[in-house]
Amino acid sequence: MSTFTPTQTSLQTLFVSVPNMVRLIQRKGLSNCLVGVADRIEQEFLRWEQFDKSARLAFHSPDGVVELMPIADAQQFSFKYVNGHPKNTHLGLPTVMAFGLLADVDTGAPRFLSELTLTTAIRTAAMSALAAKKLARPGSRRMALIGNGAQSEFQALAFRDIVGVRELRLFDVDPQATAKLVANLSGQGFEITVCHSTTEAVRGVDIITTVTADKTNATIITPEMVEPGMHINGVGGDCPGKTELHRGVLEMGAVFCEFEPQSRIEGDMQQMPADFPVTEFWEVLAGRKPGRTSAEQVTVFDSVGFALEDFAALLFMSDAARELGIGEMIDLVPHSPDPKNLFAQLGLGPALAIAA
Amino acid sequence: MSTFTPTQTSLQTLFVSVPNMVRLIQRKGLSNCLVGVADRIEQEFLRWEQFDKSARLAFHSPDGVVELMPIADAQQFSFKYVNGHPKNTHLGLPTVMAFGLLADVDTGAPRFLSELTLTTAIRTAAMSALAAKKLARPGSRRMALIGNGAQSEFQALAFRDIVGVRELRLFDVDPQATAKLVANLSGQGFEITVCHSTTEAVRGVDIITTVTADKTNATIITPEMVEPGMHINGVGGDCPGKTELHRGVLEMGAVFCEFEPQSRIEGDMQQMPADFPVTEFWEVLAGRKPGRTSAEQVTVFDSVGFALEDFAALLFMSDAARELGIGEMIDLVPHSPDPKNLFAQLGLGPALAIAA
Repeated sequence: MSTFTPTQTSLQTLFVSVPNMVRLIQRKGLSNCLVGVADRIEQEFLRWEQFDKSARLAFHSPDGVVELMPIADAQQFSFKYVNGHPKNTHLGLPTVMAFGLLADVDTGAPRFLSELTLTTAIRTAAMSALAAKKLARPGSRRMALIGNGAQSEFQALAFRDIVGVRELRLFDVDPQATAKLVANLSGQGFEITVCHSTTEAVRGVDIITTVTADKTNATIITPEMVEPGMHINGVGGDCPGKTELHRGVLEMGAVFCEFEPQSRIEGDMQQMPADFPVTEFWEVLAGRKPGRTSAEQVTVFDSVGFALEDFAALLFMSDAARELGIGEMIDLVPHSPDPKNLFAQLGLGPALAIAA
Repeated sequence: MSTFTPTQTSLQTLFVSVPNMVRLIQRKGLSNCLVGVADRIEQEFLRWEQFDKSARLAFHSPDGVVELMPIADAQQFSFKYVNGHPKNTHLGLPTVMAFGLLADVDTGAPRFLSELTLTTAIRTAAMSALAAKKLARPGSRRMALIGNGAQSEFQALAFRDIVGVRELRLFDVDPQATAKLVANLSGQGFEITVCHSTTEAVRGVDIITTVTADKTNATIITPEMVEPGMHINGVGGDCPGKTELHRGVLEMGAVFCEFEPQSRIEGDMQQMPADFPVTEFWEVLAGRKPGRTSAEQVTVFDSVGFALEDFAALLFMSDAARELGIGEMIDLVPHSPDPKNLFAQLGLGPALAIAA
């Protein structure tokens, strides 16, 4: 599509398509986007109690799930549309596709519509790295990355730029996925070891990141793999019937989540009783609850992805698009001199004939 | 915006903006849209039990509400974004603005993104007229239209084309709104009487339609105004704290709604106890429950707007746009030869420097 200079009339919506988001990320720099989105997530999480929060609305089908993730504060409303269909890759389609919106709460006017597939990869990695920065042992440099699919490069780079990770130990059941990740990360300053099993990959690391896609109750990480002091960043256990961590792993240490009512349904925590102790991560950020309490403690961030992260990412991308002049103005809703006269906008005049 | 010939690659989304929806309605004809959407609503309501239904998600603020209205069957998912801000007209903005999406359930791919402000006006009127066709007395020709704002022309025309209404008695607290409605309906085959009160307007009519916008517990229709055999089409009592009918009116006859769990929260029914009897309209369409049982019975359609009506309207508009070649293809989600390699779509190559 051609690109327009964003000159906004009162009710046009700024739209950033996938090609324009690629341009935005290229111009801004991926590292700056990862760090900038993490900063914005931290800023919004510190305002946690100002948001009207709800668990996402999920529509499950045999092959996947379609979800809406809304949230609002007193000024802005956002939502994300996102699917999860692990079999899509066999059809040449992405497993996860997303787009989303920012709107004004005081008028309901839609202000920013954007692709969120690339942006979700950035915000998920930024959220993971922000949590690890607060929960992993200081000086963590070695990370196992289990699951080397579409999200893995973003996780690696966010942990490099936000946590200081420099060594990666990789494993995926599909060696081609790992080969792709190795190629994409060449020249990025990582020391990389390709491993032949999860057990081999996690040995001696500071951080274990799991980002697998299968919609099954998997046990990718079992208690005997976990060493004292490790931080586990569990990203792929994110909907009912989709887990990655053996329940024994959750019992080994302190478990942190985003929004507890959603995580108890969707996270690896879905395996645990309703009174299993968990801390919402914003309380650690706000200094209201402890994070890691000792160097030997095992910490688990049971991440499922929460609407407030998308809210933060949409704000970051909206600001960046306006700053860089990237995007197009679209007529998603009408603007007219007389809003009570919607009919007149049809331009049908008073001469419409009676239907036969 | 310029218009593109819709040549769809596997993952592009057909987008119909407001100007393109105006073109679509002009080319199709408003009457054909009203009748076509009503037919589609009837067709989908007859498949009621095949849908995964939920009450809409509403975010309330002091001046209005922002809502998401999702629904899905085994093949397609849809949602609508819609606001309701009665004070918007003072800012030169519409009270109601909307857009929505159709997506494939088996892959999650977004297929059709459309303006839904104009379309909501059409589907709301089509729903009202479809219900009246089944519930009002046969041969109903006189209708009172209370509330002459943005939705009123659409109600009048849908009742003309679907029910056979030929006489209109109009009232609005704002005489300018009524003057606008009279002007827009000139030459449309109606016999029109402008009235000075609701009491005057409803006298002797077959059907009372209320479409007012104030977010208050109003009692626009009281029991003494209602004559035996009338059908009441209550459209504007559609969110918590926003009602139009005195509770005595609901007790006078048989009450019908769209989706009971939502209507008990949002409809005029919100005034009634949880066991107040109500019939879901689809059951009347399907022949499972009686509609009107006598010529003297008062019938009330307590309409709040349900996601399945938007699903039907989106299908109608999607078919019409493709048939007429109206709309643009947009890149809302990525399409690539290797969906597992999302990172490669950024075109950053392997030479990304480490962030400072």
